Amino acid sequence: MLPRGRPRALGAAALLLLLLLFGFFLFREDLECERRERGGSRAFPCVLTPRIPLDGRPRGTADLDGGPQVDHRGHNHSDCIPPLPLPPKCELLHVAIVCAGHKSSRDVITLVKSMLFYRKNPLRLHLVTDAVARSILETLFHTWMVPAVRVSFYDADELKPQVSWIPNKHYSGLYGLMKLVLPGVLPPDLARVIVLDTDVTFASDIAELWALFVHFSDEQAIGLVENQSNWYLGNLWRNHKPWPALGRGFNTGVILLRLDRLRQAGWEQIWKLMATQELLALPATSLADQDIFNAVIKGHPGLVQPLPCIWNVQLSDHTLAERCYLEAADIKVIHWNSPKKLRVKNKHVEFFRTLHLTFLEYDGNLLRRELFGCPSPLPPQAEQLQQALAQLSEEDACLAFRQQQLTMHRVHITFLPHEPPPPGPYDVTLVAQLSLDRLQVLEALCRHWPGPMSLGLYLTDAEAQQFLRFVEASAVLSARKDVAYHVVYREGPLYPINQIRNVALAQALTPYVFLSDIDFLPAHSLYDYLRASIKQLQLGSGRKAALVVPAFETLHYHFSFPSSKAELLALLDAGSLYTFRYHEWPRGHAPTDYARWREAQAPYRVQWAADYEPYVVVPRDCPRYDPRFVGFGWNKVAHIVELDAQEYELLVLPEAFAIHLPHTPSLDISRFRSSTTYRDCLQALKEEFHQDLSRRYGAAALKYLTALRQP
Amino acid sequence: MLPRGRPRALGAAALLLLLLLFGFFLFREDLECERRERGGSRAFPCVLTPRIPLDGRPRGTADLDGGPQVDHRGHNHSDCIPPLPLPPKCELLHVAIVCAGHKSSRDVITLVKSMLFYRKNPLRLHLVTDAVARSILETLFHTWMVPAVRVSFYDADELKPQVSWIPNKHYSGLYGLMKLVLPGVLPPDLARVIVLDTDVTFASDIAELWALFVHFSDEQAIGLVENQSNWYLGNLWRNHKPWPALGRGFNTGVILLRLDRLRQAGWEQIWKLMATQELLALPATSLADQDIFNAVIKGHPGLVQPLPCIWNVQLSDHTLAERCYLEAADIKVIHWNSPKKLRVKNKHVEFFRTLHLTFLEYDGNLLRRELFGCPSPLPPQAEQLQQALAQLSEEDACLAFRQQQLTMHRVHITFLPHEPPPPGPYDVTLVAQLSLDRLQVLEALCRHWPGPMSLGLYLTDAEAQQFLRFVEASAVLSARKDVAYHVVYREGPLYPINQIRNVALAQALTPYVFLSDIDFLPAHSLYDYLRASIKQLQLGSGRKAALVVPAFETLHYHFSFPSSKAELLALLDAGSLYTFRYHEWPRGHAPTDYARWREAQAPYRVQWAADYEPYVVVPRDCPRYDPRFVGFGWNKVAHIVELDAQEYELLVLPEAFAIHLPHTPSLDISRFRSSTTYRDCLQALKEEFHQDLSRRYGAAALKYLTALRQP
Repeated sequence: MLPRGRPRALGAAALLLLLLLFGFFLFREDLECERRERGGSRAFPCVLTPRIPLDGRPRGTADLDGGPQVDHRGHNHSDCIPPLPLPPKCELLHVAIVCAGHKSSRDVITLVKSMLFYRKNPLRLHLVTDAVARSILETLFHTWMVPAVRVSFYDADELKPQVSWIPNKHYSGLYGLMKLVLPGVLPPDLARVIVLDTDVTFASDIAELWALFVHFSDEQAIGLVENQSNWYLGNLWRNHKPWPALGRGFNTGVILLRLDRLRQAGWEQIWKLMATQELLALPATSLADQDIFNAVIKGHPGLVQPLPCIWNVQLSDHTLAERCYLEAADIKVIHWNSPKKLRVKNKHVEFFRTLHLTFLEYDGNLLRRELFGCPSPLPPQAEQLQQALAQLSEEDACLAFRQQQLTMHRVHITFLPHEPPPPGPYDVTLVAQLSLDRLQVLEALCRHWPGPMSLGLYLTDAEAQQFLRFVEASAVLSARKDVAYHVVYREGPLYPINQIRNVALAQALTPYVFLSDIDFLPAHSLYDYLRASIKQLQLGSGRKAALVVPAFETLHYHFSFPSSKAELLALLDAGSLYTFRYHEWPRGHAPTDYARWREAQAPYRVQWAADYEPYVVVPRDCPRYDPRFVGFGWNKVAHIVELDAQEYELLVLPEAFAIHLPHTPSLDISRFRSSTTYRDCLQALKEEFHQDLSRRYGAAALKYLTALRQP
Repeated sequence: MLPRGRPRALGAAALLLLLLLFGFFLFREDLECERRERGGSRAFPCVLTPRIPLDGRPRGTADLDGGPQVDHRGHNHSDCIPPLPLPPKCELLHVAIVCAGHKSSRDVITLVKSMLFYRKNPLRLHLVTDAVARSILETLFHTWMVPAVRVSFYDADELKPQVSWIPNKHYSGLYGLMKLVLPGVLPPDLARVIVLDTDVTFASDIAELWALFVHFSDEQAIGLVENQSNWYLGNLWRNHKPWPALGRGFNTGVILLRLDRLRQAGWEQIWKLMATQELLALPATSLADQDIFNAVIKGHPGLVQPLPCIWNVQLSDHTLAERCYLEAADIKVIHWNSPKKLRVKNKHVEFFRTLHLTFLEYDGNLLRRELFGCPSPLPPQAEQLQQALAQLSEEDACLAFRQQQLTMHRVHITFLPHEPPPPGPYDVTLVAQLSLDRLQVLEALCRHWPGPMSLGLYLTDAEAQQFLRFVEASAVLSARKDVAYHVVYREGPLYPINQIRNVALAQALTPYVFLSDIDFLPAHSLYDYLRASIKQLQLGSGRKAALVVPAFETLHYHFSFPSSKAELLALLDAGSLYTFRYHEWPRGHAPTDYARWREAQAPYRVQWAADYEPYVVVPRDCPRYDPRFVGFGWNKVAHIVELDAQEYELLVLPEAFAIHLPHTPSLDISRFRSSTTYRDCLQALKEEFHQDLSRRYGAAALKYLTALRQP
């Protein structure tokens, strides 16, 4: 109630005071926003409520010149709204990515690493993949075991009919168009999703991007950053006729999608109609989905919420992005949207490369970190591993061995393009493993073995990039599409040799495998000879045999490789070659019986003996290597024991041979030699292995134990 | 003017409206803050204006249980003030760190890497260092060339008298106390500084920490996070008598200092008085500076501004930090404040280790990125390098060679503890370089060479950590304090062999150096024999000579090293040893004249000839290696040419020898062999080298050119 006495003066005074106060608050709001702009409020850029006229350029299109979408030249519009909070601590964020092929799979992993590095929320990844990307990424995420990340796959090939009618000139091909069909593909109850191209890199927390959903008006359904080039303005060169767009148009490398609203608005009809209509005048899309998104937006400008430019800093050849990032306090997402990718010409490209290389080379194992305070259920196998690890005793002298055995290594299968011919019925894949210090041998190996190979590489993330550059620089290696390289990421101090071998073995696609070591060069004829022998010996018809390839060695880094068994024998007699490990460990190959081999004209059977470790050809479904053997020692021996226990015949091939090249001793063998603990632990592993053998094979396994106990 | 007609009703309505609006704004403020708290506003935690009673616990001390210092249980105090902006985009932030010795220098580098990774502001580092840390860090920052980072050094040894009177039981020793004297040491016009312990790691932008200065009231001068253990509550065990503190006290691993206010308040008198007073009752400080800071704060609680716990998450054995980080949306700085560091027992230690390992292993070269929009003047040498790089032609087939030559590699000298005995007048240091694949040879080398060594290691940041673990695991290597390891960080595709050698050579501390290669094992007697020869040949008296150590090689990884020249000759005759590169490149050592050496009883002079590349002993001030030779080829040959051009006598020592061990060929030699471009580029380098020789030595250099032109 207002006082009745002296009403006017008092009322006026009170009103004046209130007006002043009110004005102060209003003014302060403005001031705050302005300060934030100038001072660089990083987490909460002021965002304009968008006002895109139906018939004109959206305000956002004038906005290449500053970071957040605010006029920087002093005209502070009062539609600057205060910053909004990030999503709640444990809110699940959804991300969709279309990915096909080997290269895109590598790109997606780098993108995901950058996202995981900064994220603090649980994530659900919706991956639309072809068969290649699916098998790569499924294996990767299965072995990565990142807490609070769930991955769903959607079959891109099934979606092809929905977009294959659209002619498209963009290098991303058909897959480039698939973002258009996401509203129909993703779960019907999923309302919001961030859609990303495979060639973006995060430099900030994706939750800040997700937070921009709250700025959407009731009709807006698509959040996009303006295109940072003049492409859509047209006439970049003669006959350049871009698809229609509002002003510079928008870039679809980073999209916020309100799926619920798009579905409700009849998105599928809208974009199909628009595409059909434009295709009457234009021969094809040039920029895939982006052309169609822009055409739709031009027709329905109310759908779009422009996002601050820092959320999609586009690094094409003639980008205008500089106007964005030079003024901005911060860069949130970079987008390598030139077909040249990191080789793009741009005066600041070195800066952006460092951001990208950070995650390209980042040790993905470090991203296996939990989210404090959020439930982060682990996949079942991760749970088991954690329990097993927790049960290990800190006092155990062999703790390092136990931990290494329990380590689940991240695996990236077919790291490089792999398109082998369909395997024949007697075909054989060379299986081996290596680390970076053996890359030099690959070219020679390719020359000696013209058939398929499945190689396990034990590398850090940074080394995997070195490996990639090495292959790209080699004409010999680049030409081979039948060599599959499977990266097993390094973790822990001991070399998990048998785990790496098992990865390579599991990926072999031919019915037979030649289980070799990377330092062996096979006889040039070996690939043909093995296939002929497999056929001749009727291995396919249920005959359970392991074909032994006799092993030799040279001490010289340069030597002329024998072209026949006769030449090999001559070199052996001349002392230029030796039987393998003749000086250090003749037991390992003694049962092969080199004397008999000299004369042999036909395959001959030999008996297992202690410490025998020949290189053999076996069916692909042979027993796996025992992963308990980590580091140096007994890793192959145990596998041959297993073959013998399963009653594989051991047949030595009379014309087969492979020659070991010299190399620096591994760190593991040095440790074995210098540490009694190391040797004791290996002894303990052997004994446990034999206990398991007895358990599985009963009395038949006794002979192995007896052999072990003999000096 | 108020309207005169219908004044009351209208006035009342207007007033009501304004009240409503006013109320809305007030209310919204509160709401915002609350939402920010719950939703986890990461960049701007709401901060309470501190109210610390003079006689009681500060409010902050009750605040272990949540992230930002706000009561989370629903009692929203109205002293929640709105978030404040970050410092202006290009504001210079000051950081002070006390650092002494080899280990702390390594720690500081990791801390600085984490800081640089997130920073967006120019930084000025104030480093209070002993002589060891200064030489390490000066070289590091000089070669790192990070834009917008300036470093100032302050001599810790000069400050010792100011704190050495305080008995201190903390493991950080005297240096642990030096933070107390910073207000007097840092430039008098410096008003604000962030002070950090060497064992903290950033997980966020330091500008957010700097922004907390604005919360200081007029009298507050020290910003600190509460101690996250019960240490200062006392009675942790029998006879545990901590220094006085407010409640749990504060941790001094992260400090915001208002230097201006401390100076004005007479800080030096205050803390000295307090320390003197407490030391009457207590025998010594247990936690160094932290005890004294806490005692002062207990006496002057108005000085302290409590900081949110996330800015110093303390990871000691029995930390209460979990109460902080489980609720917080974000962790900003972690502090390894247990003497056990990363081996501390803590159920979440794996999480924190991943944050730390991220920067331990991060490629520091990637931090050489500019700050967009801020002036980032480069050091002069960086400017020159950039210009030279910009002038290279993209078309040049040898571009990779040119770029590699111009690369300034980051250098970390004396990566591990190095305390050599004072060098004698004839003392000689073995100088060599290696990469990770040669670590295995180090133990053997230590056994063969009991004298000082200066080794350049070409490593990535991650490999440097592998190297560290390798040395720590080796009793032989750990015992040697006279072997200096200098890390040259990898960058670029070609091996900068001569740049690495020059780093090792420049760090040799003895008057003479033995310029060897890492794969050579010297005769066991060589170190003594060389010193005797130097003395005997009077090299010190101005005789300009290079003493040649004849080189041999074995092809066997296992062989018994000859204990005398006679034994060596016997092995040579038996074909177990060869003269070095006898099979591949005899020219390299032909002038040594092995036939003459067999019989020689005294040193003999030999003449230079083309391609001669012996291993020599020379004075430390000998010519440097020519850094233009990167990759494989001619790098040592050019150095010997330079010695000959400067008229060094070449004297072969009759009892000296070293034996080369076999190893896998390097990637560079493989490239040399397989690429004609590589060979052409090497040829171009040679020719440029000879042009430079002619320029420097005139006609005397003609013989080298003539020799080069001969087939």
